[in-house]
Order: sequence, then structure tokens, then C-alpha cells
Amino acid sequence: MSWSASVLTLFPEMFPGPLGLSLAGDALARGLWSLDVRDIRAHGLGRHRAVDDTPAGGGAGMVIRADVLAAAVDEVSPQGDPRPRLLMSPRGRPLTQARVRQLAAGPGAVLVCGRFEGVDERVIEGRGLEEVSIGDYVLSGGEPAALVLMDACVRLIPGVMGKDASGAEESFENNLLEYPHYTRPREWEGRAIPDVLLSGDHGRIARWRREQAERLTRERRPDLLD
Amino acid sequence: MSWSASVLTLFPEMFPGPLGLSLAGDALARGLWSLDVRDIRAHGLGRHRAVDDTPAGGGAGMVIRADVLAAAVDEVSPQGDPRPRLLMSPRGRPLTQARVRQLAAGPGAVLVCGRFEGVDERVIEGRGLEEVSIGDYVLSGGEPAALVLMDACVRLIPGVMGKDASGAEESFENNLLEYPHYTRPREWEGRAIPDVLLSGDHGRIARWRREQAERLTRERRPDLLD
Repeated sequence: MSWSASVLTLFPEMFPGPLGLSLAGDALARGLWSLDVRDIRAHGLGRHRAVDDTPAGGGAGMVIRADVLAAAVDEVSPQGDPRPRLLMSPRGRPLTQARVRQLAAGPGAVLVCGRFEGVDERVIEGRGLEEVSIGDYVLSGGEPAALVLMDACVRLIPGVMGKDASGAEESFENNLLEYPHYTRPREWEGRAIPDVLLSGDHGRIARWRREQAERLTRERRPDLLD
Repeated sequence: MSWSASVLTLFPEMFPGPLGLSLAGDALARGLWSLDVRDIRAHGLGRHRAVDDTPAGGGAGMVIRADVLAAAVDEVSPQGDPRPRLLMSPRGRPLTQARVRQLAAGPGAVLVCGRFEGVDERVIEGRGLEEVSIGDYVLSGGEPAALVLMDACVRLIPGVMGKDASGAEESFENNLLEYPHYTRPREWEGRAIPDVLLSGDHGRIARWRREQAERLTRERRPDLLD
């Protein structure tokens, strides 16, 4: 059973987008994961297939209707679907690498992409949608966030990534930022590769990298050290 | 002068991707912003156009060469380019809505997308690249992050968004998560819209929304209240 992503969106043409290329695209072609994209508007009401309405209590923007979104969710994710149902939303709990690892190890995910002002709270409760935020900024909709979440998960699916690419992640999972990297040439525009990295002394190199990672984390992300 | 984004990537076909549709795509077609995508490999070395090499000091993965990436940067962003040069990287400072607002109010941005283990530290220093992280998770490359950053910026460019869509953002900028939304129908699967929202009493509605926003923020993101 491959990792199975279902996306509910008003812009199905946005998918697979960047996930159709490179690492994720190769893995998709090899059947290591699958992507099922559904247009929420297929469940819209009336001849204009309306999906939203004005907010109760007034205010700007439009709200996606509970009945319309629930019908879309029920179609791809009937009761008993073991996959978590995620609603991409700046109101959600922040996505972390630990959560990504957990999702990637599971059967897949249903990703609901909101647009407009938001979605009716009752469908969040009624369908057990878990709100997930990819960061403290506002997007035009949930679609770029869904692409990010799937990209992060797919690279961890067994067989997708050579073990070559795993370093950055491990470093991050130690709650330390990645140490600085260097490669050829030895000198570039008067800047040299630090001597220690050319010493061949693996113990010293490992210590230097650890110190650099700690220094960078202290400078940039003291919150990770708590 | 429209907002000008230049993207350096090894996967130029990933762009504009989702930004070619909906809000950002309409704005692109209307000339409210521009997108210039360049293939770093055009500056690769030798007949295989190599862009990377093994890390000095050993270890997994490959590192993008300073000379290759610098040549790519210099082509799109010569000295005197007023745009900030951003390197999408989990090592960067976390992107915030305040930084998005600042970027959107400026002339644009140069976005460098890394792949592999990372980029040679010397090009970060030598070309003044500002490392930006969109969140505490690891992606297959900088491209999905660049799409997210541009999406967040573009919607704030004057003329892109009707004032209808601005509510979510304002709420977020008060360091509070968005209050719950409801719309028709009045009752759905036995769940009713809260009475207060149907009361027509604007003062009570505003107070309720504020209380709900504070409650959600306390429950989910106490860090925002500090």
C-alpha cells in the first residue's frame, strides 16, 4: 500500500504542480505515493455550484459552507478512512518535523484547502478536521501549504530518497540548525574553506560542525534550545 | 514599477506552478508583479554543467558550489539591485507576516532555491544571501518554500486582493488566531450557528469574536500571547 494523499481544493489545476517533478514526481511515477485531487465545487449548490456564503454575524469575506465541504470530504474519506483529515489553516497547530515524520509513517492524509475567509466551524467539528499551519503568515489559500506538507512527507517515504539526502533532516531533528557547508574550490573570491575541514581529522571535524550548529542555533533560533 | 520576483532554481518548470492560477495568477497576468525564473544549471561547469560537489570534510549529500551559484545570482541581481536576496533554507530565520508585509512593500525579491545538502557557505556571505525558513520541517528543496513566500507577498501587493479578503490577515497581525466562522444553513447536522451571531447586536458579536480568538490562541498558540 503506497502513501495516499487526497486533496480537496477549488483549484485542482494547482496539483501536482511542483510535486510532479524531481524527487516527489519520480516517486509519484514509481507508485510510491498517490495523489487524488478533487474539486470542492463539484459539490457546490445550484446551477452556479455555490460553495460559500456570507459570514453569520457580518464581516468581510466569504465562508465555505459546511454542507458543501462535508459532502466533498465524505466522498474521498468515508467513515473508517484511517487517514488523518487535515485543514490547512493559519489557525492550526504549527507543522513540525516530528508531525511530518508521523504523517509519512502513516497511510497518507486528506488535505482540505480553504480559500476566502475560512470554512464553517461546524464542518471542522463534524468531520474531525485537524487544523495545521505551516507558518505564521497568511496565504491566498491552503494550496501552497498542502504542497509543502506533501513535499515534506513524501521525501520520508521509504524508497523515495537516497540516504545521501538525510543529513539535513537529522540535524534538524536534534533541534540544531545545520552547520555550514563547503565544497570545491578551496578558495573562492579570497574566501577559503576552514582548515579544519581539510585536516582529515574526523573527530575535530565532527566537533567543529557541532560547535557551528550550536552557535548558529543560539544566534538565530534560541527557542529551539529550550 | 511592479513587484519583481527572480527565482534561481534547478527546477525552473516548477514555476509559476500554483502562482499561475487564482489570485496570484490573475495579478501576474495583469502585470501587478513579474516572475523571472532562471536555471542555476545554465551556470554549471563542464559539459555536464555540474552545479554541486562533495562536502569538504566529508559527509552525506552534495553541496552547491559557490562559484556556480554566485554567477547565477550576479546575472539576475547585479550589485545595486535594491531587492533582498533570499535563500530558502530550514536554517534561516522564520518567516513572519511582518516580514512578508515588509517584502511586499519593497521592490521585490531574489529567491534562491537550494537542493541537495545545502549551498557553499561562502556564497551566502559573498552575495549577502538572507536565509529564510518557512517553518520547522525539511523540504526536498527550496522551491515549495519560494512558492509560499511569493504567494504570501503577492496577495498584499496593492490591487491584487479585494478588501474582502483582508480579515484573516488583520486578525493574525494582532497576534490572535482567527475566531470561528459560520455561514448558512442555520442548522446543519444538528449543529446550530451560535445565537449571538444571529442577534444583530454588533457590539456583542465583536466581543464574542474577540473572546473566541483569545480562547483559541490560548489553547493552541500560547507563544503568540507573550
